[in-house]
Amino acid sequence: MTSTRTESPGSPRTADSLPLAPQSPDAVVFRLDGEPRSPEAMIGLIQRYQAEYGYEVDDFSRGGTVEKLERRFAEVLGKESAIFMPTGTLANHLAIRRHCGTRPRAIVQEQSHLYNDTGDSVAQLSGINLVPLGTGRPGFTLAELEEVLQRSETGRVANAVGVMMIESPVRRHAGQVVPYDDMKAMTSLCRERGVPTHLDGARLFMMSAATGIGPAEYSALFDTVYVSLYKYLGAPFGAILAGSAEFADGLYHDRRMFGSGLQSSALVAGMALMGLDGFEERFAAAMARTQDLFSKLNALPGLAVEPFDHGSNIFPMRLAPDIDPDRLAAELAERSVFIYPRTEQYEGRTLLHVNTSILRQPNDRVFRAFEEALQRAGEHAKVSD
Amino acid sequence: MTSTRTESPGSPRTADSLPLAPQSPDAVVFRLDGEPRSPEAMIGLIQRYQAEYGYEVDDFSRGGTVEKLERRFAEVLGKESAIFMPTGTLANHLAIRRHCGTRPRAIVQEQSHLYNDTGDSVAQLSGINLVPLGTGRPGFTLAELEEVLQRSETGRVANAVGVMMIESPVRRHAGQVVPYDDMKAMTSLCRERGVPTHLDGARLFMMSAATGIGPAEYSALFDTVYVSLYKYLGAPFGAILAGSAEFADGLYHDRRMFGSGLQSSALVAGMALMGLDGFEERFAAAMARTQDLFSKLNALPGLAVEPFDHGSNIFPMRLAPDIDPDRLAAELAERSVFIYPRTEQYEGRTLLHVNTSILRQPNDRVFRAFEEALQRAGEHAKVSD
Amino acid sequence: MTSTRTESPGSPRTADSLPLAPQSPDAVVFRLDGEPRSPEAMIGLIQRYQAEYGYEVDDFSRGGTVEKLERRFAEVLGKESAIFMPTGTLANHLAIRRHCGTRPRAIVQEQSHLYNDTGDSVAQLSGINLVPLGTGRPGFTLAELEEVLQRSETGRVANAVGVMMIESPVRRHAGQVVPYDDMKAMTSLCRERGVPTHLDGARLFMMSAATGIGPAEYSALFDTVYVSLYKYLGAPFGAILAGSAEFADGLYHDRRMFGSGLQSSALVAGMALMGLDGFEERFAAAMARTQDLFSKLNALPGLAVEPFDHGSNIFPMRLAPDIDPDRLAAELAERSVFIYPRTEQYEGRTLLHVNTSILRQPNDRVFRAFEEALQRAGEHAKVSD
Amino acid sequence: MTSTRTESPGSPRTADSLPLAPQSPDAVVFRLDGEPRSPEAMIGLIQRYQAEYGYEVDDFSRGGTVEKLERRFAEVLGKESAIFMPTGTLANHLAIRRHCGTRPRAIVQEQSHLYNDTGDSVAQLSGINLVPLGTGRPGFTLAELEEVLQRSETGRVANAVGVMMIESPVRRHAGQVVPYDDMKAMTSLCRERGVPTHLDGARLFMMSAATGIGPAEYSALFDTVYVSLYKYLGAPFGAILAGSAEFADGLYHDRRMFGSGLQSSALVAGMALMGLDGFEERFAAAMARTQDLFSKLNALPGLAVEPFDHGSNIFPMRLAPDIDPDRLAAELAERSVFIYPRTEQYEGRTLLHVNTSILRQPNDRVFRAFEEALQRAGEHAKVSD
Repeated sequence: MTSTRTESPGSPRTADSLPLAPQSPDAVVFRLDGEPRSPEAMIGLIQRYQAEYGYEVDDFSRGGTVEKLERRFAEVLGKESAIFMPTGTLANHLAIRRHCGTRPRAIVQEQSHLYNDTGDSVAQLSGINLVPLGTGRPGFTLAELEEVLQRSETGRVANAVGVMMIESPVRRHAGQVVPYDDMKAMTSLCRERGVPTHLDGARLFMMSAATGIGPAEYSALFDTVYVSLYKYLGAPFGAILAGSAEFADGLYHDRRMFGSGLQSSALVAGMALMGLDGFEERFAAAMARTQDLFSKLNALPGLAVEPFDHGSNIFPMRLAPDIDPDRLAAELAERSVFIYPRTEQYEGRTLLHVNTSILRQPNDRVFRAFEEALQRAGEHAKVSD
Repeated sequence: MTSTRTESPGSPRTADSLPLAPQSPDAVVFRLDGEPRSPEAMIGLIQRYQAEYGYEVDDFSRGGTVEKLERRFAEVLGKESAIFMPTGTLANHLAIRRHCGTRPRAIVQEQSHLYNDTGDSVAQLSGINLVPLGTGRPGFTLAELEEVLQRSETGRVANAVGVMMIESPVRRHAGQVVPYDDMKAMTSLCRERGVPTHLDGARLFMMSAATGIGPAEYSALFDTVYVSLYKYLGAPFGAILAGSAEFADGLYHDRRMFGSGLQSSALVAGMALMGLDGFEERFAAAMARTQDLFSKLNALPGLAVEPFDHGSNIFPMRLAPDIDPDRLAAELAERSVFIYPRTEQYEGRTLLHVNTSILRQPNDRVFRAFEEALQRAGEHAKVSD
Repeated sequence: MTSTRTESPGSPRTADSLPLAPQSPDAVVFRLDGEPRSPEAMIGLIQRYQAEYGYEVDDFSRGGTVEKLERRFAEVLGKESAIFMPTGTLANHLAIRRHCGTRPRAIVQEQSHLYNDTGDSVAQLSGINLVPLGTGRPGFTLAELEEVLQRSETGRVANAVGVMMIESPVRRHAGQVVPYDDMKAMTSLCRERGVPTHLDGARLFMMSAATGIGPAEYSALFDTVYVSLYKYLGAPFGAILAGSAEFADGLYHDRRMFGSGLQSSALVAGMALMGLDGFEERFAAAMARTQDLFSKLNALPGLAVEPFDHGSNIFPMRLAPDIDPDRLAAELAERSVFIYPRTEQYEGRTLLHVNTSILRQPNDRVFRAFEEALQRAGEHAKVSD
Repeated sequence: MTSTRTESPGSPRTADSLPLAPQSPDAVVFRLDGEPRSPEAMIGLIQRYQAEYGYEVDDFSRGGTVEKLERRFAEVLGKESAIFMPTGTLANHLAIRRHCGTRPRAIVQEQSHLYNDTGDSVAQLSGINLVPLGTGRPGFTLAELEEVLQRSETGRVANAVGVMMIESPVRRHAGQVVPYDDMKAMTSLCRERGVPTHLDGARLFMMSAATGIGPAEYSALFDTVYVSLYKYLGAPFGAILAGSAEFADGLYHDRRMFGSGLQSSALVAGMALMGLDGFEERFAAAMARTQDLFSKLNALPGLAVEPFDHGSNIFPMRLAPDIDPDRLAAELAERSVFIYPRTEQYEGRTLLHVNTSILRQPNDRVFRAFEEALQRAGEHAKVSD
């Protein structure tokens, strides 16, 4: 059973490049943050929005259904203003760029998506130095933050920090979150020092469902926040960047300047609105169902679900040495339950990603699927020996 | 009758911000390059593509239906490779950026979209100096080009030109085109001097329909070419950037770096494919119908359609002083023919934009509409005097 | 007699790359803006400063003799603050960069040094788009300026102008100046529109000597001004950038960031201070002497000195067709008077650059030198025929 | 006895901002890397160069004495080519910028001067992301290097490393060096991976004197190397950047573009040449003298000189608790020996910086100075109790 961090499902490349999970309507899919999307599902969302609300045209992503989307998210996140962006990469970039202004230095997690997976875009395109903290860990500490804020002002060339960003949940660390109290301490320190703060909350709703702290409570700590529209809300792409009215003023010019002023975004905006309808409730229900299921599963021999101390919707499952993970996955798949195969393991464990597809079957049925699959995988192991 | 160039329909802001033209199925709309889009029309395109071809998923805009789109356009444009971009702004930017490499100087038309309407993005984000030629005119001359190529090498700091770009048709000049022979001479000179060339052919298909020179013939003159997917092909947004396989290699990394790696672009790709099906034929038919109609209209008193020497799908119409343009527009609208009102005039003339909606009515009926509307507008003028 | 503008002495490359003019103490040198420098002359300046004032150490170009230099220039230019820069290229760049802040668009002359001879550094390093006006002419007009200010705000992406710069005298146009009243009108317009202004006054003292309008009067029109320390003040390199205290605050950080925080600049600062001592008076005397000399020379057959309408210290001299310019130069050189040879002609004329070396001989002697040299050059021409 | 790293003499700000050490000709100064400079000393160097070799003019830092300097350093460093730069900040920047080309990612030490003291210039001006390794330590390890090279190619956006730089000696760590074998392993790895390498060898000659490995041997490991001209060679400022002829080709254009094309650099070039004459021998003698002196000093009670494992010309001296460091410094100063006072301590120790001023007195005299000063400082401490 081999495993490396860079090949784990916590890593973006593999998770996203997986073949789409099966589309059967009762499939419980312990993969990805949202229910598997398909062209049919996307077209369905569009039609439902058109039927229930009716699309209104936008002009280069301004007005109409897009504006509705922006207002809705501003409200959910407790900010004055919100703006649609085609990608989270752009949302984070523009937030950092605008906060920095003429102070081009940004503090980020060394393990953040921004630092690892955007081609150094913030440095390349905006000339902003990303200072990475917390090497190899999900987050950095208050002490590390203080030290950098201090040093940035005492280098030979004054070099004040323009923004501090926190990503949480951290996708390179299996969705583990930065604890709320840590966020509070760090954003407070930044406020004292006059350093704006930004939350990469791509999966903010996952975090809220896990911790019970609402999206607006998290959002209130930061000057700006980004959330994803496609990871679990069903849109084909898109992001929201929310902040004060002053922050958002004229930001669509920057969006266009980067080449992201889509002529019409109404369709995608409607899909995201449709996905948001009742999402918090559905996801809370999914998390409750999960707790129940995992406590039952832990009674089974050969399997232990061990939540992270600061996890969100991802749960590591450890298998006894005599259980073949690929066989287990295959047996579960025959019972309409889908987990990641061996190649996607994280530190020797299989990561179970919880999303709302867990609601498609009663827990009893899922439990039985695991029970039977474990038995078969165990027998298989004996035979193979 | 007042008119300024910056408020003309040749200018992008006003043309695009017009209220959508009426959606009645027989409306002949002498506005915009494409038939008016509506949410219904867009949803219809999606459904037709799904029904006729079936969507295939893409992974962050790679593979599936997106790849089909790219292959189709590479073929139409006679290039080895093509890549989907969310906007023309990005397509032009990445072309220029990649051609320049470490020679950050680009020659462009002073009147080009890139120079005027992208927030100086190429300078701001890529540090490339755009050298604007042909001030106030649709294009620049071979002599101007030669002089700049020469001077760039003799400044105190050597500063070789990294790329030469031509936009044609020129939207700030009512769709007038740079003549093919001029393009040929200028791209030849660049080739001799080792300077790559790029065609901003957002409306390339309009140009081909007008000149009879095919898209691939134009494209062959240039190293790379961009064409729009939304202006007349029905997609809600999007662009194609085509060039050699070497040019396109790894370009999706740049796309992502700029924040334009949409997680799924299959829907929009299918819409563009649907719109391309038979487009050249339909548009050629529209242009033929136009010739016939305008020659008939020119027999009417008080109205003269005067084509540009190097026009594409836009035709200036001059009205006699006793014809009130707004009244004419209103009368035509009652007959399901739509033109721009007085506020959109260009050098004292009304611009008629030809698109495929001209095929919705027989020419006789459109002719009668003009005939009657002119008469009413003339009478109206007399009464008002 | 061939001549092209790019090879003229108005062009920086040729003027600066000429072999040093002879060092004899009575040489009158109608070349360059300042008296020819030699290592001996530079060492002499250093020793004189040390003897008369005594050097005081600086710390990375701050404090000591450097601060003295800065204070002296702030006073002469009527600004609150001044900062030493190693080059004019950097002085202009940092002025533009700081004025622009987050509005990266600068209006400059198309014929300016900044636009032609700095390797597009402002675009490359600071992402600022230089908008060139007045193509092929020394300056641009108020109308051109207004049109660009207007258009910058009406492009599809708002793109306010961050700074307007005027270079005067213009070295690519034989030191011709932008008239004071034009400067006044243009800087007033900018002030109304909230656009900061910068004067590239590398040769400001030449301009003042020619127009009688003092350096501080010119400087008062602009927010910031740069003047050269080496072109006519005897320093081996260096520049001054002057402006408000607020503008200059912390600017040494930017200087260092660009790699120009010289560890010790005291020596060069002292040389410039030494050169400035009495410079205005000496140069005024030189200009007066020049008027007298040229009026006398114009009485000679075969030669006509024709001042520019808006010239500074450079005067075009037209020779009769039977006078061989190279022969004339050679004959003059034998009489300790030095002019540019034929290869440096400007629009068919020889440019006489006035500097303080004209004071080294009485005008009578210089006049006789021209008289005799013209005679010889004329005879020579007849013989060669 | 308080001490913090940021206030130590290992830190650039304090070391450089110290008042100049006394100028008496027999002063032994255990501060700075070179002998204290004064205006007189600098003028003396200029005069000596003029007398012994004679200055030759340069044209914007090309040709003449500057070229002599460049050739001499190319030879000493075993490279084909070398170019004069006004500062090390610029030398490092241009090396990194050119190596990176279109791969804007550079690996550097987290404690390097470039990362801490240049205002993020490489990111700001060249859009290059500096990846900092070895947090809090003088250098990074081969494993850390490998991990980053690996990860840079597996992020979601391919992001190849363009250059790897090593600074040694490390000035933020009291001149400690990266061991030669480590350098060899790391540059070999980079060569295999096609990643160019650059040595920030500002104090390369210090390192060579300490390790016995010559400058050219170090230089041979790297594609390019920078050395300082002012830290110990007596020039008022300046740096050399050496590499292959291909690397250096046209690099003066970049120098000018950054605003560092000084019109005349002959004087400073001559000073550096003068300083280089016999420097290696003099510094080797100084290091030998140092060894002898410190072994004798270590026999004295209350004082222990404890070399770093990988030190260069800086030696920490620990004092017994009953020795007042300020008193010791004062007593030594009376005996023409100068050390840093208490405020400049490094981890509770006084750093003795060895330079060639140690040769100004016989070791016996310096030893006696310490012996007497220690005794007085010890007595003083008792009395104060």
